[in-house]
Amino acid sequence: MTDARDLVAIHDPDDPRIAAYRAVRERDVVGRGERFVAEGEVVLRLLLGPSCRHRVESALIAKSRLPALADLLCALPPEAPLYAASQAVMDAAVGFHIHRGVLAIGRRAEAQDAAALLSELPPEALVVALVGVSNHDNVGGVFRNTAAFGADAVLLDASSCDPLYRKAIRVSVGASLITPFARGGSGAELMDALDAAGFRTVALSPAGKTRLDEIEPAPRTALLLGAEGPGLPTALMARARSTARIDMVAGFDSLNVAVTSGVALYAMTRGGVRPR
Amino acid sequence: MTDARDLVAIHDPDDPRIAAYRAVRERDVVGRGERFVAEGEVVLRLLLGPSCRHRVESALIAKSRLPALADLLCALPPEAPLYAASQAVMDAAVGFHIHRGVLAIGRRAEAQDAAALLSELPPEALVVALVGVSNHDNVGGVFRNTAAFGADAVLLDASSCDPLYRKAIRVSVGASLITPFARGGSGAELMDALDAAGFRTVALSPAGKTRLDEIEPAPRTALLLGAEGPGLPTALMARARSTARIDMVAGFDSLNVAVTSGVALYAMTRGGVRPR
Repeated sequence: MTDARDLVAIHDPDDPRIAAYRAVRERDVVGRGERFVAEGEVVLRLLLGPSCRHRVESALIAKSRLPALADLLCALPPEAPLYAASQAVMDAAVGFHIHRGVLAIGRRAEAQDAAALLSELPPEALVVALVGVSNHDNVGGVFRNTAAFGADAVLLDASSCDPLYRKAIRVSVGASLITPFARGGSGAELMDALDAAGFRTVALSPAGKTRLDEIEPAPRTALLLGAEGPGLPTALMARARSTARIDMVAGFDSLNVAVTSGVALYAMTRGGVRPR
Repeated sequence: MTDARDLVAIHDPDDPRIAAYRAVRERDVVGRGERFVAEGEVVLRLLLGPSCRHRVESALIAKSRLPALADLLCALPPEAPLYAASQAVMDAAVGFHIHRGVLAIGRRAEAQDAAALLSELPPEALVVALVGVSNHDNVGGVFRNTAAFGADAVLLDASSCDPLYRKAIRVSVGASLITPFARGGSGAELMDALDAAGFRTVALSPAGKTRLDEIEPAPRTALLLGAEGPGLPTALMARARSTARIDMVAGFDSLNVAVTSGVALYAMTRGGVRPR
């Protein structure tokens, strides 16, 4: 292992060199500014891969995991330190048991607004726009589906949660590191940007007028999703080119928003999934 | 409120009458035998409704929630005590903050095996069979989708998690209380029961031979799903009448199993969702 990559042995959980890894859950709450935390081998692989839009700052790996990860860790750029610690030191620094023994700190790419992001997409594009989706699991799940079905980008209004929040990255299985996204503004501003970029907007709602399978995807299609419970604001529903519903049993609670995104992306890509 | 239903005021978190509510998380680990915990108003409504297959034993409600829940609590059968406590007493008994202030203890209906359950289904039926799905969120998510798309029942092998585990009920939004299920045996035994009952078995897998949208639902169709990662055992894939895949971008991790169930149920019910 050490042939391939210098590593910095850490013996003290209070070592200032691993300060960014300390009290991970507490910092989830206060936020990390430009930094984010990546957990687990699959996510680290995406963070170090060619599709990642962000930069790795350092990695902290349990010593016992180093042999199995040797090849992967060679992809860590020379300026990013590789810290190695015993599982016990790692757990003590982080504040809970990291049972996969793999953590990294990333630094986010410069943020883009929705208009700038949409202007970079190809003439045929499929995007997902989230309004008021503040649950980390749901945002992570939407990103996972977006990557699986080869959609091009995700837009999020300011009230939706940060896709680089630790749990959102984990639930996305790293998809939020490789999928272009823009977050900010209101739902109406996202709609303005989508209209200006020539997207056919399809608002998903149990109250949608058209059955999802009757929606014909346009060259540029945007799927709009709101939070469970409130759903999409009425004004956005009214502005959307189409409103689509997934037929369900009357009286039962609606689908989870991540599941809805999976079903809608499946329906929109039934002509075949394009590699991005 | 008290006009409609006698309530038992609880002032001490250690009151033995609410012993079943004590240390909820710790008991999640050791199990509750025939009992289960239902959380939140939506789940309580299903637990007290006509579709519930199980029995309510008691409810513990934060005093502040009583006025809003008065109508619902009238449906609590007379033999089931209604305990009322301050939020502080409730939280102290339970061991964490119950921010919705609504808990109930249920007692599960007598278990059925897969063959007995399938024999009670109508001639046209859609079921979901889970093999090795041990994650509570995923099992809860599958039940939520099953109820939303009007599928008739869920079968689970012994290694899949209990649908009446607290978190599974919560994630299912109560669907696991109203959906007939049988849990036990091996995947091969579930397959035996499905074959004997005349079900067309469709195994979902990224390695499936047929594209999901090309599968024609039979009068009796069973969707087989395995755990993320290992997927369905090879022997079950070989025995299934069809193997179906959801087309995805190559190289990215597969879909979450709950999302897969949602997409597959959507595809199987495209001719229209039947009320159960």
